[in-house]
Amino acid sequence: MRDVVEIGPGKLARRGYHLRDVALVPSRRTREMSDVSTAWQLDAYQFAIPCVAHPSDATMSPASAVRLGGLGGLGVLNVEGLWCRYAEPEPILDELAALGEDTPATRRLQEVYAEPIKPELIVERVQQMRDGNETVAVRVSPQHTLALAPVILDAGIDILVIQGTLVSAEHVSTVEESLNLKEFIADLDLPVIVGGCTNYQTALHLMRTGAAGVIIGIGGDEWSTTDTVLGIRVPMATAIADAAEARRAYLDETGGRYVHLIADGDLRTSGDIAKAMGCGADAVMLGEPLSRCEDAPANGAWWHSSASHPVLPRGAFGAAEAPLAAMDTVLYGPSTDPDGCLNLFGGLRRSMAKCGYRDLKEFQRVGLVLDPGCH
Amino acid sequence: MRDVVEIGPGKLARRGYHLRDVALVPSRRTREMSDVSTAWQLDAYQFAIPCVAHPSDATMSPASAVRLGGLGGLGVLNVEGLWCRYAEPEPILDELAALGEDTPATRRLQEVYAEPIKPELIVERVQQMRDGNETVAVRVSPQHTLALAPVILDAGIDILVIQGTLVSAEHVSTVEESLNLKEFIADLDLPVIVGGCTNYQTALHLMRTGAAGVIIGIGGDEWSTTDTVLGIRVPMATAIADAAEARRAYLDETGGRYVHLIADGDLRTSGDIAKAMGCGADAVMLGEPLSRCEDAPANGAWWHSSASHPVLPRGAFGAAEAPLAAMDTVLYGPSTDPDGCLNLFGGLRRSMAKCGYRDLKEFQRVGLVLDPGCH
Amino acid sequence: MRDVVEIGPGKLARRGYHLRDVALVPSRRTREMSDVSTAWQLDAYQFAIPCVAHPSDATMSPASAVRLGGLGGLGVLNVEGLWCRYAEPEPILDELAALGEDTPATRRLQEVYAEPIKPELIVERVQQMRDGNETVAVRVSPQHTLALAPVILDAGIDILVIQGTLVSAEHVSTVEESLNLKEFIADLDLPVIVGGCTNYQTALHLMRTGAAGVIIGIGGDEWSTTDTVLGIRVPMATAIADAAEARRAYLDETGGRYVHLIADGDLRTSGDIAKAMGCGADAVMLGEPLSRCEDAPANGAWWHSSASHPVLPRGAFGAAEAPLAAMDTVLYGPSTDPDGCLNLFGGLRRSMAKCGYRDLKEFQRVGLVLDPGCH
Amino acid sequence: MRDVVEIGPGKLARRGYHLRDVALVPSRRTREMSDVSTAWQLDAYQFAIPCVAHPSDATMSPASAVRLGGLGGLGVLNVEGLWCRYAEPEPILDELAALGEDTPATRRLQEVYAEPIKPELIVERVQQMRDGNETVAVRVSPQHTLALAPVILDAGIDILVIQGTLVSAEHVSTVEESLNLKEFIADLDLPVIVGGCTNYQTALHLMRTGAAGVIIGIGGDEWSTTDTVLGIRVPMATAIADAAEARRAYLDETGGRYVHLIADGDLRTSGDIAKAMGCGADAVMLGEPLSRCEDAPANGAWWHSSASHPVLPRGAFGAAEAPLAAMDTVLYGPSTDPDGCLNLFGGLRRSMAKCGYRDLKEFQRVGLVLDPGCH
Repeated sequence: MRDVVEIGPGKLARRGYHLRDVALVPSRRTREMSDVSTAWQLDAYQFAIPCVAHPSDATMSPASAVRLGGLGGLGVLNVEGLWCRYAEPEPILDELAALGEDTPATRRLQEVYAEPIKPELIVERVQQMRDGNETVAVRVSPQHTLALAPVILDAGIDILVIQGTLVSAEHVSTVEESLNLKEFIADLDLPVIVGGCTNYQTALHLMRTGAAGVIIGIGGDEWSTTDTVLGIRVPMATAIADAAEARRAYLDETGGRYVHLIADGDLRTSGDIAKAMGCGADAVMLGEPLSRCEDAPANGAWWHSSASHPVLPRGAFGAAEAPLAAMDTVLYGPSTDPDGCLNLFGGLRRSMAKCGYRDLKEFQRVGLVLDPGCH
Repeated sequence: MRDVVEIGPGKLARRGYHLRDVALVPSRRTREMSDVSTAWQLDAYQFAIPCVAHPSDATMSPASAVRLGGLGGLGVLNVEGLWCRYAEPEPILDELAALGEDTPATRRLQEVYAEPIKPELIVERVQQMRDGNETVAVRVSPQHTLALAPVILDAGIDILVIQGTLVSAEHVSTVEESLNLKEFIADLDLPVIVGGCTNYQTALHLMRTGAAGVIIGIGGDEWSTTDTVLGIRVPMATAIADAAEARRAYLDETGGRYVHLIADGDLRTSGDIAKAMGCGADAVMLGEPLSRCEDAPANGAWWHSSASHPVLPRGAFGAAEAPLAAMDTVLYGPSTDPDGCLNLFGGLRRSMAKCGYRDLKEFQRVGLVLDPGCH
Repeated sequence: MRDVVEIGPGKLARRGYHLRDVALVPSRRTREMSDVSTAWQLDAYQFAIPCVAHPSDATMSPASAVRLGGLGGLGVLNVEGLWCRYAEPEPILDELAALGEDTPATRRLQEVYAEPIKPELIVERVQQMRDGNETVAVRVSPQHTLALAPVILDAGIDILVIQGTLVSAEHVSTVEESLNLKEFIADLDLPVIVGGCTNYQTALHLMRTGAAGVIIGIGGDEWSTTDTVLGIRVPMATAIADAAEARRAYLDETGGRYVHLIADGDLRTSGDIAKAMGCGADAVMLGEPLSRCEDAPANGAWWHSSASHPVLPRGAFGAAEAPLAAMDTVLYGPSTDPDGCLNLFGGLRRSMAKCGYRDLKEFQRVGLVLDPGCH
Repeated sequence: MRDVVEIGPGKLARRGYHLRDVALVPSRRTREMSDVSTAWQLDAYQFAIPCVAHPSDATMSPASAVRLGGLGGLGVLNVEGLWCRYAEPEPILDELAALGEDTPATRRLQEVYAEPIKPELIVERVQQMRDGNETVAVRVSPQHTLALAPVILDAGIDILVIQGTLVSAEHVSTVEESLNLKEFIADLDLPVIVGGCTNYQTALHLMRTGAAGVIIGIGGDEWSTTDTVLGIRVPMATAIADAAEARRAYLDETGGRYVHLIADGDLRTSGDIAKAMGCGADAVMLGEPLSRCEDAPANGAWWHSSASHPVLPRGAFGAAEAPLAAMDTVLYGPSTDPDGCLNLFGGLRRSMAKCGYRDLKEFQRVGLVLDPGCH
C-alpha cells in the first residue's frame, strides 16, 4: 500500500500526490450549512476562517493585513519587503503593477529589493498594524531573524512568522553563526509559525523547535519555478498528510502539544482549500488569491519573495490582472463566477456540509478518491 | 488488486476511474444488430431506450419532455426551473440562448432564477405533459420536496425525481425540519428516483429509502465546476461499479428488490453511454446532448441547475451552438458525423452487437480494459 | 505482475498499453546494418518487408497495389471500395481529394459508397492486378464474403483478406445465414488473412478458423472514432502481446501451425513499426502512411472504410495534405525529415541493428521499457 | 516494489522514469552555500563543475571548448564535425544559424556534412585547443575510431570521447572489422569516455572495456526524434539509477575501479542537472544549453549529430534564438530569469545546500519523490 517505487536498483522514490490528484468523497450524511463552523484558533488567537496571508508585498500592506484581520483571517506583513525598505513604497508598487510578465520584470524586482531593510520602518509598520486593533503578525526570513528579531519584538507583535522557501531545524554552517530555532523560540513568549517544509522528518523537527504552527509547502503555484531551478517540487496532498502524521507523533511524544499545520501551495480555489483541509491541514496560507482582491497592494500583480532573488530568482512575475472582487467577496461571496475563485470560505463551508462534517477538525477525516488522469 | 494508495501515513485514497479511462473489450462472439435490444423498464414503465433527461431548463420543456417520451425515453421537467417560475418563460430562454460564456451570463442566470416558484404553474406544466400521453416525471430538490410535493402529487405525475447535486439518505439539521426520504417515499404510491450520489455507502443508503432508482454521479461534464468549487469530483466508472455492488448487496438483503442505477455525468457520446452501461448502469441521464437537439428549449445553450446558485454557482454557462440535429436523429440516427454525438442509441446497440451481447442486463458483464494514458 | 485493477467491487479491468507507452531497450550487442534482414514470408509468398496495405480506397488502387508488391510488400485492394462500385472511380477520388475535414465530407463519403458493388468490376480489377505480376490480394467484409467469394475466387487471387472493424469467429444471428469462417476457410486452397480483433480469446478463435494470418487491432489512428462511437479502443502493445500468446497456444495445440499476426493500428512512423514488431507482430498493416505517398489514389486524403458507414460513421475524413514522397522513398528512404515518416523500413532495420537483432523473429524478443508519462 | 508490468502474457516491461517525473526531497538539514562544493575529478583532471560539453558543432568550436575549460568544465570537439571537414567552417555555421526549423534545414545539414573529414584539420583543431592550455578532449564515433584514432592521438589530446547515439561493447559484423573497445582502450594511456547507453547491462559491459567514464542516455531532448524513428527512448532517471548500480557492481568486481557516469539527455535547467546528480550521475553533458550562450559557434542554432544523417536523420533542427547570456553567466549567473536556464551550477549548488549535502558524491544519496502527474 505504501507507494514506494524503484527508479532503479538502490534508488527508491515515494510517490507524491498533488491536491489536484485527489478529490473529496462525501460521507453518507449531509449537514445543514448553518450547522457548519470554519472557526480556527492558534494559541490564544481566534479566527473565523483558517486563512493566513502569504507574506508577499503583492498581498499584504499594513492596511490590507488589518483588513484581513477584520474579516476573520490573519494578516502577515513581510518585514523584509518593500514596506520596510522604503518610507513610501506606493510609487514602486504602482510601477510594479504596470510591468508585464518577462525578464525585465524580474530585473526590476531584483533592483527594488536591493534597497536595504530599515529597522525604523519595521517599527513604523508594526505600529500601523497595531493601530488596526487586529492580531499583528510579521514574517522574517531565517537568515535575518537574529538581526531583526530585537526590533520586531520591541515593536510589539502578536505572532512571529519565520519563513523561507525551505527551512530546516538544523542549518549547518562553518562560516557564520546560524539561527538555532529551538533556543530562539524557547526565549520568546509569543507564538511562532515556522516553515516552509516538505516532508515528515523536517516537519517533525520543526515541531520540536517549539513552534505553534508549521508551514507545509513552499508556496508552489503556477508562478513558482523551484522545480526547474532547484529540482524541488512539493506534491501538497502528500506533504500535508505526512505532516499530519508528524503532528500525531509529536502529540504523542509531548503528551498533548498540538502544532498547527498551515498549508502553503497550490491553493487557488475553494475546492483546493477544502482538499488541503481534508488532507489534514489546520489552516491555509493564501498568496495569489489575496493579490487579486480589489484593494491589494500591487493592484493585482503577484510575485513570491524568491522571485526577486539577486542571483537565482525562482518565481515568475505575474502581471496585474483585473481584480476579482473586494476582499470580503473573495472570502465570503456572493460569487458570480463558477470557477471557485470567489466565496472561498463559503465554498469550504458548503463542501464540509455536503460531505457531512461540522468543524475543521472533523473534516480532516473526510475520505479521498485518487484520480489517475491528467489535468 | 483493490486499488488503495497511501497519500500519506494514515491517509488512504481509493483510486477512481473515469469512463474515458476505460474501454470495452469485445467477447469472442459478435451478434446481428437486429437481435440486440436496448429496452429498459422501471417499475411498470417501459422504455425503448435507457434514456432519462437531466432535468435542466436547457434540456426539458413540457413539450420536449413529451417528445422524448414519444421517442422511447423518459422526459423529466424541473419544477424548480423557469417553467414553474414564469408563466411565459420563452422570452427568458431566448435571451439566455443569446448569452456568451462569461461572468455576466452567470449573473443573469442568478437573476432569472431569483423569481419565486409558483405552485399554480407546476400544476399547469404537469397538465401540459399529461396531455402528451407519455410517462410524466418531474424533478424537485430535497430542500423543496416537503413544500412542493403536495402540489406535484396532486397534479398527477407518474414518476418523481428527487435530485440535488449531492443527496444523502440522512440530512442532519439542528435548525429546521429535514426531509426524511425513507418515510416520505414509503407514503407514496409512485416510483421515486433519487440522487445524485458518488459512492457505495451513499448509494446503498439511498436504496434503503425505497427508491426505485438511484442517480449515480452529479452530472459532471466539462461545464461543471464542482471540483474547483467544492473539491468533489466523481470518477464515473468507479462510481457506477460501486453502486452496482450496492445494488447486489441490497438485492441480497431484501431478497430480491432491484433498484435501477441511472448514471449522470461524463455522458456525451454513444461510446460514453456504452461504457456507463458496461460498468453496470441500468440507464443514463443525458443533459448537454439533449440541449443540443434542434428543438431544445434554449436553442442549444446549456447549464446545470447549480450554475444559477445565488451565492456559489458551480457550473459554467455553455453558450448556444448550432443544433446537432432533431431529437430523433440525435437518439436514433442516421448520423452524418463521426464523433459519436449523433445516433446515440444506435451506437449503443451496435456496440452491444460488436461485443456480443443481446440485452442491457447481459451487457453489464462486458469486459473492460484500462488505459493509463492521457486524453 | 498481471496488471488487473478493480474499477469497483466485482468489476475488474486489465490495464492496456499503447505502442506510444512503450519503447525498445537495446541489448548489450549492436549489429551491422547489412547483417540485418526485414524479410517476411506468409505461406508460400515472400516479401522483402513485413508490410501489408490497409485496404482503403485512400491507399490502394489496382496500380498502387502492384507498385507496393514490386517494392516488396503486399498490396490489398478492397473489393467493396470505389474501384468495384464505379467503372471510372478516378473523378470521384479526385473530388474526395479536394474535400475538407468536416461533416459534409462524411456525407459525401456516405453518398459515393451508396453505389452498389459490381461483380464484373471485381473481375476487372483483379485482372488488372494479375497483370502486374505481383502477389494479388483483395479484402472483403465478413457480411459480404458469402455473396462475393465466388466472384473473387474465380477472378484468381493469391491471398484473401476477410476484414471488418471487429470480426469474431462466431457471429450469432437469428435472422439470416452467417458466415462460418472455419468451414469457409477449410474449403479454400489459398491463404486467408482475417480480422481485426483486439484480444487473446478472439485472436485464438480466429486462428482456429484455419487462417494463415490474423489482423490485430482495428486500424485505430487519430482519424478513427471507434472509441467515442462504440466505447471500444485498442491499446495496441497489449493487443499484439496478447495475440502473440494466442499464437504460442495455437502452435502448441496444433503441434506447429504458425499463424502470422498483422498489426493494424497506431502505426505512423518507423518507430511505431519497430515497437509493433517488438511486441510480437509478424507484419504491419499500413493505412495513412501509404495514403500520403506521391502516387496514392486520393492524392493524400485518408479515410477508413467505416468512415462512410451509412448510419454510424466511425472515422473522420483526413483532408489531403501534400504528399510525403514517392512510395519507394516512404518505404526505403533516403529520408530528409527527422519525424520518422520517411524511410519506414530503413528505420525498422536500423532499430533492429541498434538493438542487436538479425531478423524479425529474433526482434520479437527485444526488451521493453514502459513510460508512465504523457504524450 | 520492482516496477515490472505485463504488457501481455510473456511480454514484460520495466517502468522507466524521466527526470521530470521525479523531484528532490530535502533532508532535515540545510547547509550554508559557501560550505557546498560542486568540484568533479575524472582521472587526473579536475573540474570546478561537473559539466561536459555535448560535442555538437552547435555547442563547440575549438575556441568555445577552451572557454568552457577556462570556466571549470570540459570542452569536447567533434572531430567528425564541420571544423574537421572545412578549413573555414564559419560561413557554413553562419548560414545554418540563419535557417528555420523545417525539412530544408535537414537537407542542408545533410549536404554540409557530406564533405569528407580531413585528418590535417583534426591536427590543426587539436593544436588550436592545446594552445588554450585547458584539458583537451575530442569526440569520435565508434565507426570512425579505428581510422581516425592514429591522427587524433598523434595530435596530442588529454581525453578521448568515443560516442555514438547508441554504443555497445560488442558490435557484431560479418562484413567488416569492428572496433573492439576493450582492446582499443587497453592500448591507450589516456582516459576514454564512451557511450551513449541506456541500461544496466550495456553500461556494465561498457565499464568493462576499461573506460574512465560512460555516457548514460542518448542526448534526448525536445529536438531528438530517436523515439519516433527507432522506437527507442530513454527515461533518464531510471537510466542513471541503473547505471549507478552497474557502477557499484563494477566497483565490487574490480575491487575498487570507479567509472564515472556522464548523463546526456533531458538536461535544460539547473533543476534537471540537480535531479540527474541526485539519481547518481557524476557529471552532466550539456548540449542545447551551451548552444544558447552568446558566443556559441552557430549563434544559438541547435542540432544533434544524428540530425544530419544522410538517409535517416533523427533530430530536428533548432533554429537560432536570441542568446541567453555569456557562457559564464549561463554557468554561474547572476540569473535575471526565473526559468532555471541561467546560473546552472549556482542553481545546482543552492539545491545541494537546501537539501543538506556538501559535495556531489553525498548528493547522489538525496531522496526522491515520484510525481504521477502530467507535465
